[in-house]
Amino acid sequence: MTDLQPAPIGRRARGGADARRASRTNQVVPPKGYIRRNIMLYEPFSDDQLELIENNAELILEEIGIDFRDDAETLTLWKNAGADVKGERVRFPKGLVRSICKTVPREFTQYARNPTNNVVVGGKNTIFAPVYGPPFVRDLDGGRRYATIEDFRNFVKLAYMSPSLHHSGGTVCEPVDIPVAKRHLDMVYSHIKYSDKPFMGSVTAPERAEDSVTMARMVFGEEFVDRNCVLINLINANSPMVYDGTMVGALKVYARANQATVISPFILSGAMSTVTAVGTLTQILAEASVGIALTQLCRPGAPVVFGTFASSMSMQSGAPTFGTPEPAHVLFSAAQLARRMGVPFRSGGGLCGSKLPDAQAAHESANTLWPTLLGGVNFCLHAAGWLEGGLVSSYEKFIIDADQLTMFQRFAEGVDFSENGQALEAMRERNATGEAHFLGTAHTQKNFESAFWRSGITDNNSYEQWRDDGEKDQSVRANATWKKMLADYEAPVLDQGLDESLQAFMVKRKETLPDGVS
Amino acid sequence: MTDLQPAPIGRRARGGADARRASRTNQVVPPKGYIRRNIMLYEPFSDDQLELIENNAELILEEIGIDFRDDAETLTLWKNAGADVKGERVRFPKGLVRSICKTVPREFTQYARNPTNNVVVGGKNTIFAPVYGPPFVRDLDGGRRYATIEDFRNFVKLAYMSPSLHHSGGTVCEPVDIPVAKRHLDMVYSHIKYSDKPFMGSVTAPERAEDSVTMARMVFGEEFVDRNCVLINLINANSPMVYDGTMVGALKVYARANQATVISPFILSGAMSTVTAVGTLTQILAEASVGIALTQLCRPGAPVVFGTFASSMSMQSGAPTFGTPEPAHVLFSAAQLARRMGVPFRSGGGLCGSKLPDAQAAHESANTLWPTLLGGVNFCLHAAGWLEGGLVSSYEKFIIDADQLTMFQRFAEGVDFSENGQALEAMRERNATGEAHFLGTAHTQKNFESAFWRSGITDNNSYEQWRDDGEKDQSVRANATWKKMLADYEAPVLDQGLDESLQAFMVKRKETLPDGVS
Repeated sequence: MTDLQPAPIGRRARGGADARRASRTNQVVPPKGYIRRNIMLYEPFSDDQLELIENNAELILEEIGIDFRDDAETLTLWKNAGADVKGERVRFPKGLVRSICKTVPREFTQYARNPTNNVVVGGKNTIFAPVYGPPFVRDLDGGRRYATIEDFRNFVKLAYMSPSLHHSGGTVCEPVDIPVAKRHLDMVYSHIKYSDKPFMGSVTAPERAEDSVTMARMVFGEEFVDRNCVLINLINANSPMVYDGTMVGALKVYARANQATVISPFILSGAMSTVTAVGTLTQILAEASVGIALTQLCRPGAPVVFGTFASSMSMQSGAPTFGTPEPAHVLFSAAQLARRMGVPFRSGGGLCGSKLPDAQAAHESANTLWPTLLGGVNFCLHAAGWLEGGLVSSYEKFIIDADQLTMFQRFAEGVDFSENGQALEAMRERNATGEAHFLGTAHTQKNFESAFWRSGITDNNSYEQWRDDGEKDQSVRANATWKKMLADYEAPVLDQGLDESLQAFMVKRKETLPDGVS
Repeated sequence: MTDLQPAPIGRRARGGADARRASRTNQVVPPKGYIRRNIMLYEPFSDDQLELIENNAELILEEIGIDFRDDAETLTLWKNAGADVKGERVRFPKGLVRSICKTVPREFTQYARNPTNNVVVGGKNTIFAPVYGPPFVRDLDGGRRYATIEDFRNFVKLAYMSPSLHHSGGTVCEPVDIPVAKRHLDMVYSHIKYSDKPFMGSVTAPERAEDSVTMARMVFGEEFVDRNCVLINLINANSPMVYDGTMVGALKVYARANQATVISPFILSGAMSTVTAVGTLTQILAEASVGIALTQLCRPGAPVVFGTFASSMSMQSGAPTFGTPEPAHVLFSAAQLARRMGVPFRSGGGLCGSKLPDAQAAHESANTLWPTLLGGVNFCLHAAGWLEGGLVSSYEKFIIDADQLTMFQRFAEGVDFSENGQALEAMRERNATGEAHFLGTAHTQKNFESAFWRSGITDNNSYEQWRDDGEKDQSVRANATWKKMLADYEAPVLDQGLDESLQAFMVKRKETLPDGVS
């Protein structure tokens, strides 16, 4: 945090405008920035149990090892670091990987173009980012359809306007109306143009990662980017026990540019790992720690996050399942393993398999979000908008999730044990007046505005009011909310010269890129 | 557990029939009885913080005290115990209440007429019981309407057939088609007749409590009932700081008959307590401990549960709100306070304010059920079927909740760290075969049947399958499930002589009771 902070880029005054916007959209007091947890973590696993997993991970790294596919440079990096390299298989003497990981920063700041929105990744912090990756979108009016760049911009705008989304995310949906080789430019540009929260770069090819870094340098300045994190980037392992050259190529671009990577084994237990939690955790730890170590071979001290995405599967149909108990156990344990390594942790989100934002979607999401918060996730992708196993970005689910995230943010503030919190005077006053309730006490009058978290979209009216208002369910209210938010949207100011430069860069780059679908 | 166990009353063989029934209804492996937690608790509050609350509770008990309305006998009990009694106000010298509570059993068995369904209340156990109290019911076909005795029987049957409901509950809905003064007889009889799980007695008047005990004695035998708990009964404090004679009358009947009471301050914070969590907890502890102590004045060693029902409220409309963060804090802390007293704890449930079993209902329910499980609730009322702030027993919500409860039951089993759980051999086998997945390993083949929790009603099919199947949301699937369950229902055998005696008792009692509506 002692690093030079760039002058905000064309940012207008906050505060008053923010407050008015919040009051226009949902009348809820906005949370203040990302979550700094003031509650204890739930850490259900003992040191002995965690050591067992660590020892087993070392064992399989030494005995089985990990393949690095189509990537001679990385094989050389590992050979020089002391690993045993045979063909594409790399085996790791016990202790080697952990020893390389010692240069990982325990926490780091990701800077936003509006410094109010900087986030500190690690420690007691939790950062919520939107859904990542769906090729489809769904809303109540249009149903399910392929996503476009307009949808992409809409989700960026909704995240920008949602106080519980601390981050603009990355591929909030795949804009399939733009050629694959070009769309990363439009995605990065949209995050810069339509939001001033921190965002993610492209990882689908090393040159797309280079483009992301180039655009970030245009916004933040070359020297600043070399010294500070302004991009965070999702690198998946190709589980089990494989990294492919494309993703690792992006990893190396970002690590060498001092930008953050989230090293995430993506696992459906039973297929990409064993069906048991401890076996899955062993593999996650092995894969993640090797990816993390590789960032440090590229640039010691480069910011990096221990990521995991683990779900169960239907052993009958092979379909991934969400909100089940087994991935919750994996999340809690992986979080403890990451803390023992001293590396910030990514997992969780509002994951679900449901096709609609119904009770199934909500239960499954809640069953991941409770472990997300209590387990101490630092960076939470997919916190809002995820539907249908990640195939769909849902407008209504985004609103419902974002509302629930404010609940978790309030929960994380903990309990006030001050004299005001103890409220003995209120009890004495109530007794002295002989009233049968506390509504009129001075204490209640003083505290009631901020006493309870308020949802922006749930219905707590009487049955008769609700009936007369059309018997709306939660998704119908959410539909009205996102439409009003998009209608009310005002873009954060972006310096016109910078905007033109970014657009000129995109035009020039696109001329060199193919129009195909892959 | 060393007490004499009565011969099962007309019970038929279990096991095979149960397994067949489960396979007919939802193809999910039924959990084995109530939950014996094999996971750590989440205990976010420090000893210092809990002591502060305890000291403040002692302070208000001494300084403010509690009113016992229309109940001269109880005032005498307190006077003789050393309390300061002025009119209906009882004040308690510091330490008195806690000292009387020392005879409370840390755990106790509630016996069912089928001993397989006995439950142990306390310790590491969690028992789920259905919703309690709603005057209305709702289902997808008939909408919202007043509840009848047929609805009551239906919910008893559904709880009987749901492996995650460990208890038949009490007023699963109010059968408003039967006169108020008579309906307790039909309710108790229905629990005995249509289920063989443990159940609750009537508390709405002392003589109705006597009737409940009489019917229980007919089932279990007089001597057995005097020595063992066969009824558990919900006693609410009239918060703030009042107990009324009717409820306390029922409390005394049950305690003297050695039957369990659940002493529950029922609180909407802001109205019946202060708006702050610590103030609310102070009052809950004061009220609950006095009610608990009173059971011990009636009969030292009588089984009793520290209960609480706390919700927040909309400070704009005064409506109760559910699934909010403040009651979650209260639940976690109250559970810790109860454990420090050595008294089993009741709270939680699938609480919600929603009018429909939609995403709002699910989120709000999950936000109470996660604290219920991780906080260590021993007896959980309202675990299934609660809708609309407790005004409605919902058929579809019951099914959705019961399904989620099996998820929590599985989560509570914890993680397998055995050699089979570690699964190193599976990783070696997968590597040796060169397969890119674990599906074919011997370990997967051996474990896949039981590897993952399976929901009975969620949809995890492909989008195309789901679409072609009619785009059903969770409530539509739940509607089909409860109808099939009721169609498949088979009553547990009840000895014909006992059945006739119970019915004869009811007929005779009803002749003496009025037909009015109050």
